[in-house]
Amino acid sequence: MVRLLQIDASARPGRSGTDPHGSHTRRLTARFADRWRQHRPDDEIICRDVGLAPPAPVDADWVRAAFTRPEARDDAMQARLAESDRLTAELLAADIVVFGAPMYNFGLPAALKAWIDNIVRVGVTFGFDRARGDTPYWPMLPAGKRAVVLTARGDLGYEPGGIQAHNELVVPGLAAPLRYIGMGAVDVVAVEGDEFGDDRLATSIAAAEAGIDTLVARLQTQAVIGRTS
Amino acid sequence: MVRLLQIDASARPGRSGTDPHGSHTRRLTARFADRWRQHRPDDEIICRDVGLAPPAPVDADWVRAAFTRPEARDDAMQARLAESDRLTAELLAADIVVFGAPMYNFGLPAALKAWIDNIVRVGVTFGFDRARGDTPYWPMLPAGKRAVVLTARGDLGYEPGGIQAHNELVVPGLAAPLRYIGMGAVDVVAVEGDEFGDDRLATSIAAAEAGIDTLVARLQTQAVIGRTS
Repeated sequence: MVRLLQIDASARPGRSGTDPHGSHTRRLTARFADRWRQHRPDDEIICRDVGLAPPAPVDADWVRAAFTRPEARDDAMQARLAESDRLTAELLAADIVVFGAPMYNFGLPAALKAWIDNIVRVGVTFGFDRARGDTPYWPMLPAGKRAVVLTARGDLGYEPGGIQAHNELVVPGLAAPLRYIGMGAVDVVAVEGDEFGDDRLATSIAAAEAGIDTLVARLQTQAVIGRTS
Repeated sequence: MVRLLQIDASARPGRSGTDPHGSHTRRLTARFADRWRQHRPDDEIICRDVGLAPPAPVDADWVRAAFTRPEARDDAMQARLAESDRLTAELLAADIVVFGAPMYNFGLPAALKAWIDNIVRVGVTFGFDRARGDTPYWPMLPAGKRAVVLTARGDLGYEPGGIQAHNELVVPGLAAPLRYIGMGAVDVVAVEGDEFGDDRLATSIAAAEAGIDTLVARLQTQAVIGRTS
């Protein structure tokens, strides 16, 4: 069995094409999940909605608790880390994490950054030891996990090599911390041109949906090979 | 009079060098403010602490309210935008915005991204009109505002041209949306090497403090010229 963790981060509750003012990224994550189930109905898909229920940002109590050895944490510290514990456990259990990550003002929605800050956990997803010298940290996620970033941006030209590529901060905003904790494989599918609302958007959505179908087929082939080899 | 808006985003309440486990960026913003007051004691410095009191992330109600014409907003919409109104008014009143923006997992703290998402306001800080064609948006901030980013990152090599420059997502994470609303001038001062806690950190802090003193002197000269020319 493959375990998927689907993380929706849009502030909009519905799906474009289905609900008025619906989210493009929710449309994409739903398509990914539907296509996945079509050929692998027994795989588990856990849904975590940080868009509708944003995690609390880390604060000083969080940092103090996270940097206290687990056996030395008092009740208040354990309570402060409870949400982070749940989010981190979901990540640790997943083989593939599918992000529905819209671009908000060129970067991640604040709620999704709050998720990132909650799952980068010393002693759990990365290790840290000053005695190691110039690289005192190391990734702790088990090898083989992958990420899929399904994103949407209002303007055009954010693809690699595009005229706005330098302003595309969603993919690096996820990829850099995920790489830090040990998840280096990231596939990206994007919808562009929402702000025009014309043929360019429709074309982009169609291409993104086809891209998702191709990606699901490829990942399922790898999943089967990975499990049987 | 010059109006400064100081935005502290660290999750840590104290200042490094003064308080145990204190924040480097709070140390830097405090120094910036102290130096500024030394020669221009009558300028106004407004402090907004998003680290200790994070703004609520934007949600569907926020988006619906923001995209409703002000005169058509009902009480619930006005209430939903009240925090955004306050934050945006502070920005509009400021000549210089000084960010204390630590790097968390390569990017902005979630609380600071929530501030960004609250001040990028259609009809207030940017305009949008699909009838304009390929560039339907335009910046609405009055010309001449500037930003100062005082940042801190645990590792080394994030400076432009450095080996980790591609992972430095704090400065672009602020500069891209600020440019979008009309604030293109951004100065940056950084502390690096916190995770080593050795001479490299001490050297970096000393250089950052000297850099702030130089920057304050330059900005004050420009402020005087700008007001008298």
